[in-house]
Amino acid sequence: VSARAGIVVTGTEVLSGIIADRNGPWLAERLRERGVQLAHVMIVGDRPEDLRAALEFLAREGMDLIITSGGLGPTADDLTAEVVAEFAGREMRLDEALEGRIAAILERLRARWRSMDRPDADPLDQDARPDAQRASTLDAMRLGNRKQAMVPEGATVLEPVGTAPGLVVPAGGTTVLVLPGPPGELQPMWRAAQETAALAAALAGAGVFEQRIMRLFGPPESEIAKTLRDAESDGVPLDRLEITTCLRRGEIEIATVFEPDAADDYAAFEAAVLERHGATVFARDGETIDDLVAGALLGPPVRTVAVAESCTGGLMAGRLTDRAGSSEYVLGGLTVYSNEAKVELAGVDGALIERHGAVSPEVAAALADGAIERLGSDIGIGITGIAGPGGGSELKPVGTVCLSVAARGGSRIDRTLQLPGNRAMVRERTTTVAMHLLRRLLDGGTD
Amino acid sequence: VSARAGIVVTGTEVLSGIIADRNGPWLAERLRERGVQLAHVMIVGDRPEDLRAALEFLAREGMDLIITSGGLGPTADDLTAEVVAEFAGREMRLDEALEGRIAAILERLRARWRSMDRPDADPLDQDARPDAQRASTLDAMRLGNRKQAMVPEGATVLEPVGTAPGLVVPAGGTTVLVLPGPPGELQPMWRAAQETAALAAALAGAGVFEQRIMRLFGPPESEIAKTLRDAESDGVPLDRLEITTCLRRGEIEIATVFEPDAADDYAAFEAAVLERHGATVFARDGETIDDLVAGALLGPPVRTVAVAESCTGGLMAGRLTDRAGSSEYVLGGLTVYSNEAKVELAGVDGALIERHGAVSPEVAAALADGAIERLGSDIGIGITGIAGPGGGSELKPVGTVCLSVAARGGSRIDRTLQLPGNRAMVRERTTTVAMHLLRRLLDGGTD
Repeated sequence: VSARAGIVVTGTEVLSGIIADRNGPWLAERLRERGVQLAHVMIVGDRPEDLRAALEFLAREGMDLIITSGGLGPTADDLTAEVVAEFAGREMRLDEALEGRIAAILERLRARWRSMDRPDADPLDQDARPDAQRASTLDAMRLGNRKQAMVPEGATVLEPVGTAPGLVVPAGGTTVLVLPGPPGELQPMWRAAQETAALAAALAGAGVFEQRIMRLFGPPESEIAKTLRDAESDGVPLDRLEITTCLRRGEIEIATVFEPDAADDYAAFEAAVLERHGATVFARDGETIDDLVAGALLGPPVRTVAVAESCTGGLMAGRLTDRAGSSEYVLGGLTVYSNEAKVELAGVDGALIERHGAVSPEVAAALADGAIERLGSDIGIGITGIAGPGGGSELKPVGTVCLSVAARGGSRIDRTLQLPGNRAMVRERTTTVAMHLLRRLLDGGTD
Repeated sequence: VSARAGIVVTGTEVLSGIIADRNGPWLAERLRERGVQLAHVMIVGDRPEDLRAALEFLAREGMDLIITSGGLGPTADDLTAEVVAEFAGREMRLDEALEGRIAAILERLRARWRSMDRPDADPLDQDARPDAQRASTLDAMRLGNRKQAMVPEGATVLEPVGTAPGLVVPAGGTTVLVLPGPPGELQPMWRAAQETAALAAALAGAGVFEQRIMRLFGPPESEIAKTLRDAESDGVPLDRLEITTCLRRGEIEIATVFEPDAADDYAAFEAAVLERHGATVFARDGETIDDLVAGALLGPPVRTVAVAESCTGGLMAGRLTDRAGSSEYVLGGLTVYSNEAKVELAGVDGALIERHGAVSPEVAAALADGAIERLGSDIGIGITGIAGPGGGSELKPVGTVCLSVAARGGSRIDRTLQLPGNRAMVRERTTTVAMHLLRRLLDGGTD
């Protein structure tokens, strides 16, 4: 049996839904890679008794490892280290060497904090701040320094990435890994924790696992469940594969974790999925459609792309430029929301809009051509549609989207779709469909 | 004392971090509005013993209300209703009338499922699917129908929004509200649950609360903590205000919940924040910068806006068009990633780029002018910067962004900033800064 783990995310802002937790999902993926079974994620506020109750619950449930995130800051309501120490039955002691190292970090930060410590500062103003006000912030920092250097006796200290150290705290039958809340600090510290003997001991029961991800574009999620059942009754052994399927951004993701000696079982499972779902499987090892499109555009030879979009209002260009290095192949885009802009900027014939309507396959094609023409790209993407909530009609309800992807003087793929969901979902799904059409064109598809 | 609640989100995809939970945060906000104190959010997978342990933990911790989301589907691994019944010590009984109502829903859905039941379907193909394959999916649906009509004895049934009914289940000292996982079903059902006597009884202890949100752009979060301390030592009573501060998208949000008779305390607190943070407070009652910009653009008179953007690659136009009805005032945008596009499309003088570099205040201003010129708008936004990770230099490090917001033939506000964070953060923060500059210009500001 593999090791079991629980995660406790602390913070009133997360509990109250004001900010989304990014640490739970990130740690969950790391645990899966590490072959540790995650049983519970718990979110608690800043009340120490609730954190204490969560730790006790997870210990009672037999977790080998408990990971906490947050509550390590310098202020009085940052109580995680103290509560964990109490839970583990260990005294808090000042680690003087650590105090010195934190002080050195604060000293280095000092110069960079210039623009961050005036309460009524014009945020758009780059002037230096008065020294007196800066000093008050620094005083508060020094007070917090000593607090952050208090460590439960017998715990392993993880060096600060920001100013807060992390901890590995043995607690009877379980081990508590105490990490800071900011993802930029938590993630490197997780990696550092892997090197400690204390964590290795806690996870001694965890094996080595492999993870593979397939992605499909097209079939409904219910069909994947049916494929699993059918494969099993056809004799494909699934019991050593931990398979998770989910719908993400309009695509199906099948994530599977298995021990290395179940590799043949996975191969048989993958073959069954490929046989049944054929060309809708676009990724066999975790690639995203964005990865595939970027790879195809980079060539060699590099092919350049430009966008002329209406209902997606800039999101298509935004998605293409999301990736570092995309300036290699993205020339730019036209967001042509008004009909005038479609005509003036993208060179769409006004008579075409008059005759077929702004949301029509003809206008989508003209937008793709206009993108090529105006930006001088090899490939153009044209998008026009009704994202809602208003603007729909009997013939063209909300969710109607016309897409066209064209190569300069070459092939073209056009689609008109009805997409489900609200305005934000229609806009996002549209960019996903466009990415798939673009990939098909780049692979030499013509329809 | 107010009522206390816990939330249990079920589902392996959520636990494993593959999909983000949207129900916990949504329910947390509803509970806050309702004056219920949320103590724990727990995420469990599909193992019934883990769900059972979570329910028992929350009951032991004295929750008046436990809300579950997910696990109400038609398949065998959807076990929430059964586990809750067992936890509450109630038998499962078939509700025949409910079974009939679910059957009627499935019948209505049938016609709309045409395009969703072929496993190897080209997702971009709109053709009808063969009848035989459709039938196999419908068989599976009928099997699930009976399962979904099994109800714990003595529970209140909440009518299905999709196909799954919800439940209010009294369980000794606590009440379990069982809701489906899809947010589109959970949210309307939460509202329906408010009308039931069973839920009213569970929340009898909850009072009526008010919630107010202030938003600030500029000061660091640590300064807000200091403002709270200072206000308290100046005699502003804060003990009846539940104040949560957080950093969101580069802005500070101060959310406060209080009972109506603490309204004077809130007024004093608000005055203290306004006095200390002055013009950086841009919203006193929950408005977002996007709300304020939209309101200012709508006038009357309406003022139109257009964008010419480089490093944000379409996201600025995407943000402006996020809002339903934005076609009233957004004419469109130019994503000018390449220098050629800046010259050809936005009309930037090539010599300007040569002389000052593509990332320069001069080019940002020329982009704003170009947006006005090319799209015929009243206002233009120009953005150019280095989002990273590459492209930085000693003089212009990654995070350097130049913005210009200009009115046709009128005033102009320019800024050059150094933004922290990775590529995605720099791009998003840039759009936030641009929204604030736009609002300032719309309010008649000139710098």
